[in-house]
Amino acid sequence: MSEQHLHPPVSVLGLGTMGTALATALLGAGHPVTVWNRTQTKADPVVAGGAARAADAAEAVRAGEIVLTCLLDHTSVHDVLDAHTGALAGRVLVNVTNTMPEESAELAAWAAGHGIDFLDGGIMAVPPQIGTHEAFVLYSGSRRALDTARTALAALGDVRYLGTDPGMAALQDMALLSAMYGMYGGILHAFALVRTGGVSAREFAPVLARWLGGASGLAVPTAEQIDDADYARDVTSNVTMQAAAYDGLCDLARARGVDPLLLEPFGGLLRRRVTEGHGHEDATGVIDYLTTTTSPGAHA
Amino acid sequence: MSEQHLHPPVSVLGLGTMGTALATALLGAGHPVTVWNRTQTKADPVVAGGAARAADAAEAVRAGEIVLTCLLDHTSVHDVLDAHTGALAGRVLVNVTNTMPEESAELAAWAAGHGIDFLDGGIMAVPPQIGTHEAFVLYSGSRRALDTARTALAALGDVRYLGTDPGMAALQDMALLSAMYGMYGGILHAFALVRTGGVSAREFAPVLARWLGGASGLAVPTAEQIDDADYARDVTSNVTMQAAAYDGLCDLARARGVDPLLLEPFGGLLRRRVTEGHGHEDATGVIDYLTTTTSPGAHA
Repeated sequence: MSEQHLHPPVSVLGLGTMGTALATALLGAGHPVTVWNRTQTKADPVVAGGAARAADAAEAVRAGEIVLTCLLDHTSVHDVLDAHTGALAGRVLVNVTNTMPEESAELAAWAAGHGIDFLDGGIMAVPPQIGTHEAFVLYSGSRRALDTARTALAALGDVRYLGTDPGMAALQDMALLSAMYGMYGGILHAFALVRTGGVSAREFAPVLARWLGGASGLAVPTAEQIDDADYARDVTSNVTMQAAAYDGLCDLARARGVDPLLLEPFGGLLRRRVTEGHGHEDATGVIDYLTTTTSPGAHA
Repeated sequence: MSEQHLHPPVSVLGLGTMGTALATALLGAGHPVTVWNRTQTKADPVVAGGAARAADAAEAVRAGEIVLTCLLDHTSVHDVLDAHTGALAGRVLVNVTNTMPEESAELAAWAAGHGIDFLDGGIMAVPPQIGTHEAFVLYSGSRRALDTARTALAALGDVRYLGTDPGMAALQDMALLSAMYGMYGGILHAFALVRTGGVSAREFAPVLARWLGGASGLAVPTAEQIDDADYARDVTSNVTMQAAAYDGLCDLARARGVDPLLLEPFGGLLRRRVTEGHGHEDATGVIDYLTTTTSPGAHA
């Protein structure tokens, strides 16, 4: 295999903090990297690190067997690439710009119409994690694009290919972010609560991180209950007990001057489960109040 | 050191799922264990495993150098123990019954008034984790009680002593539970969202657990910002960007028939930060809307 095949040239368009981290990781893995950014000075650090500076987006596109876009949003991708579909034809386009699933699907259709091999990506990491195994990236779209780009993509973080539906990476990316915000709200509430007892956040953070790290494993048994729509199996603490305990959590917060507004909606759903006759089940059944989709386990 | 000192006798009062797990772990570690439960048949499994059955609570109290209560609630502890303060005097009482901080403080004062060495505990585990390093237990109260009971307590899970304030274990326990419910709500929202794309919960659970496990580390840098009341340091994604992205998460959910009611309150706080001039800062500043306590970093 030629050097060209082992380390295909990659162009990175968009050099915010994340794009810069991606270009740096690719350079570190031995790829020839060409970079472009609308504000050219943003390219300086990565050019100093060995990347070639493209004079314009067209030159960047032509330099890469793989073209990686990390721009502001869906509109920016079209703004930058629409004039260069001829040069993009036959190349692999990997878009890691944050997009909604429907926008990713639109880009895939646009790319297919111009003979561009398209892969959409959702980066599950902050820039300092890029290039480490703390980072993983969800991809969906062309299988051929994945195969061509896989070695280069592996330099960014663990590669998770979710199949040919181009919107799938964006959908799962959004779901993961949603779950993280739930946890983050819980973290802020917890810090506010212990502060009322004179406990600094620094003092509490290690035990909080350990606890949440362990509790993240809850996703697995919860998933089994959801797919089977069986909320009464393996119940450790039933909804009636949890609803009462949950009210206690909110009452304690109020009594100590902490507004439990981030916790309250979940408490309302727990009480509704009890009222509607599900008090003996697990709290997982709360999911039935979140969704109007009634086809659990479609892929089970 | 005598066998008595290496493995002091422990009595366990209250044999729900958790009390049974505690008694079993103590037996496994070589302690003589005496058990009592109001409904006597609940003691059968642990008696079959080698525990002695006490005829009543008084007998249980007299049999233990360490008396461990794992009952329904604060009232139950008094119901069971108030008649036996004479027998309890000079013994170590470890209460792992779920109580509020103020209730733990009340028990500590009651115990002190009767010459009972009192330690309050908050178990951060589900019963199957007891006796493994997945479990940890927060303790606060008498240092001497901790020293006497430490070897026995180590058989239950990792021991985390939080100092002499007897309500501290309960406070941090409640804070950890609050954070877990935030995460759990996020998990259910995420499962509901990916289901709209035909993704089963089982398929999504491993990546969700991995993501949240990694993201739990966010607690540490967040703590530093909170203690220093400096939300403008090390900003990766500012509040203005996050508020916009967050609205996108909620819009996507609605468009797919998922009610984002568990996410909405946090979105409201993000928008309020932007409106009030904190758009350039990190989202951590949301904590200022949760609490009326204005002494961050009291112990920093």
